[in-house]
Amino acid sequence: MDYQDAFKSAVARVRAEGRYRVFANLRRYRGEFPRARWRTEDGDVRDVTVWCSNDYLGMGQKPCVTESMKGAIDDVGAGAGGTRNISGTTNYHVELERSLADLHQKQSALLFTSGYIANEATIATLGKILPGLIIYSDALNHASMIEGVRGAKCEKHVFRHNDVEHLEELLRAAPLDAPKLIAFESVYSMDGDIGPIEAICDLANKYNALTYLDEVHAVGLYGLRGGGIAEREGLLDRVDIIEGTLGKAFGVMGGYIAADANIVDAIRSWAPGFIFTTSLAPALAAGARASVEYLKSAHYLREQHQERAKTLMQRMRDADLPVMDSETHIVPLWVGDPVLCKRLSDALLDDHDIYVQPINYPTVPRGSERLRFTPSPAHDDEMFDQLIEALQEVWVRFKARRTA
Amino acid sequence: MDYQDAFKSAVARVRAEGRYRVFANLRRYRGEFPRARWRTEDGDVRDVTVWCSNDYLGMGQKPCVTESMKGAIDDVGAGAGGTRNISGTTNYHVELERSLADLHQKQSALLFTSGYIANEATIATLGKILPGLIIYSDALNHASMIEGVRGAKCEKHVFRHNDVEHLEELLRAAPLDAPKLIAFESVYSMDGDIGPIEAICDLANKYNALTYLDEVHAVGLYGLRGGGIAEREGLLDRVDIIEGTLGKAFGVMGGYIAADANIVDAIRSWAPGFIFTTSLAPALAAGARASVEYLKSAHYLREQHQERAKTLMQRMRDADLPVMDSETHIVPLWVGDPVLCKRLSDALLDDHDIYVQPINYPTVPRGSERLRFTPSPAHDDEMFDQLIEALQEVWVRFKARRTA
Repeated sequence: MDYQDAFKSAVARVRAEGRYRVFANLRRYRGEFPRARWRTEDGDVRDVTVWCSNDYLGMGQKPCVTESMKGAIDDVGAGAGGTRNISGTTNYHVELERSLADLHQKQSALLFTSGYIANEATIATLGKILPGLIIYSDALNHASMIEGVRGAKCEKHVFRHNDVEHLEELLRAAPLDAPKLIAFESVYSMDGDIGPIEAICDLANKYNALTYLDEVHAVGLYGLRGGGIAEREGLLDRVDIIEGTLGKAFGVMGGYIAADANIVDAIRSWAPGFIFTTSLAPALAAGARASVEYLKSAHYLREQHQERAKTLMQRMRDADLPVMDSETHIVPLWVGDPVLCKRLSDALLDDHDIYVQPINYPTVPRGSERLRFTPSPAHDDEMFDQLIEALQEVWVRFKARRTA
Repeated sequence: MDYQDAFKSAVARVRAEGRYRVFANLRRYRGEFPRARWRTEDGDVRDVTVWCSNDYLGMGQKPCVTESMKGAIDDVGAGAGGTRNISGTTNYHVELERSLADLHQKQSALLFTSGYIANEATIATLGKILPGLIIYSDALNHASMIEGVRGAKCEKHVFRHNDVEHLEELLRAAPLDAPKLIAFESVYSMDGDIGPIEAICDLANKYNALTYLDEVHAVGLYGLRGGGIAEREGLLDRVDIIEGTLGKAFGVMGGYIAADANIVDAIRSWAPGFIFTTSLAPALAAGARASVEYLKSAHYLREQHQERAKTLMQRMRDADLPVMDSETHIVPLWVGDPVLCKRLSDALLDDHDIYVQPINYPTVPRGSERLRFTPSPAHDDEMFDQLIEALQEVWVRFKARRTA
């Protein structure tokens, strides 16, 4: 075995598909989001506009958030210094968990170091504490949920994306008294469509299943207090476990689940990905709490956000650009080829100071490559004008498709 | 299926074994570590001394670290706003990776959101990109490595802890040209013993295996620049992949691997736990870099740290307390029963203002429960006096064993 060859060829396979990733080295300016300074591989530095951040509302630069973080650093220092059990629980963690439980109108919440590990650890652990569990997983679930389902080591069925009839067919085939979990998302982040939460909860009742809803691309953004799509649709009490992130609309870092006290206590007591890891830095917990609380009453930001997304989609349609159907704030523009997708992205950055990352496999299925725009309340009309003009130029230059 | 019953009984099983965990709500004072304010469940607040933090050197309160974090928040805001690939790479990340590669004298390093996910994602991904891989895993490896081995879905063999003869026996039984990985730790964090790195690397050469070394409880603490046990023993170039954490001796949060450029590029391109997660908050990367660089030249802190640990062990031996053999800075005191372990810990906190968490299953094997002390350079002789006196009192009161 020649290991060097093996590692080189693993990378070569990625390159051959045109999906080798070069991370753009960006430095945002606090207070001037979405502007950022881009450092090229040659070491040049240029100002660009960021069009693909998941800091959807620009909360990462809000003074209430940044000052809370700095205050916590002044008070208690940098890291937590231990796992939650071994010296790593602070008042910041306890208060943030209370704030998140309140956001989702649940008895309890539990912090993880990321949304990824929240999904993976919680779903895998449910497989361990519910013997005989059968998991029903939406075909487009996020990688972290898929890893969680794998880790659960139980019977699983993948239902066609958002297809409740297919889901029912699969549920019906299992014994009624077998424990079941339906795992799905509210906002699917690459297409911008929404899961049929109510219909899935109805099926869960009928077939005695638990529901696990990933709201990472919805928390802070939907519902009157930012509780997500389940809040907007009045379904908070019908979902058993809601999973969210502190790293997108809340602008900080970390993940969590919210559920009733027994579920949270069981996961807290059994999940290796929760137990065996240094807890969130207190400053992150402090900043996230400030952000969650701010957004509970800042509905104006959510309205601005929706207006910006709808306007951008309309501008793209008017310009005959292949914008994909989206019911949310996510604005995907169809390309359908990984190499072209990278070329368009490079040209936008090099020639127009517009940063939007190509979205290729494994983030989306092969053949559905796209550019994914996430306009925030801070993206103004002038930036929209520049973007549309730049897109027209590169679309013509590279003869990209006009239909999604 | 009654789900409430199932979750309650999952927690009841933990309670029945006397290992239900109550997280102490602590708030450290920056600049006064190891002092902290403890909030009881009744809401009372008391000052205590923390004896079980993994912020081994108190770097979490060093001004160079906390000021770097605050500076980054002022410059770029709270969170990274995206995955490493999608707008989440900053200069802070790039520079920290360079600093870590230099620390371990490797070509590259790769950041993860935690040491847990660094282990899990890297080991699982090696199983995917090296077809036919056989993993050899030390019996006392950390939970995150065990999860990684599970995720690798390949042939695996567990060798007896630190037993190179057993390891060789297992290696010899496999075809010489089969790809192999030996996964082990340098400092085992609950016993304080050290893995036989050189002997394992010799076997790796002989049987053409890769070596994967977890140094999370050693980085910053051993070696002339804090590169860990592998640096101290002159073995940096013989270990293929070194894994470390930013959340213990470096006092911040996050994890990483360091290896040659091809390995890092392959993991970077293939590991879901790296690809699909919001990158470290820039402030964490900035603080960690300041800490890593500070410790490269602060050997005096490592010397103080070793002196404190050795002195505490001797004080315990002199007091006829059952301190376990440890070759490192970790000072475990044998108890051997989960209920008694919790009682001793509670009494130390309630009656002596000493906070040391009981270490029960699943963190250590059942029957080997212990109190685990981690004296830092900030724990002075007076604190040692108070601790020994308090331990004598509770050891007599609860008739705890005197031999390990």
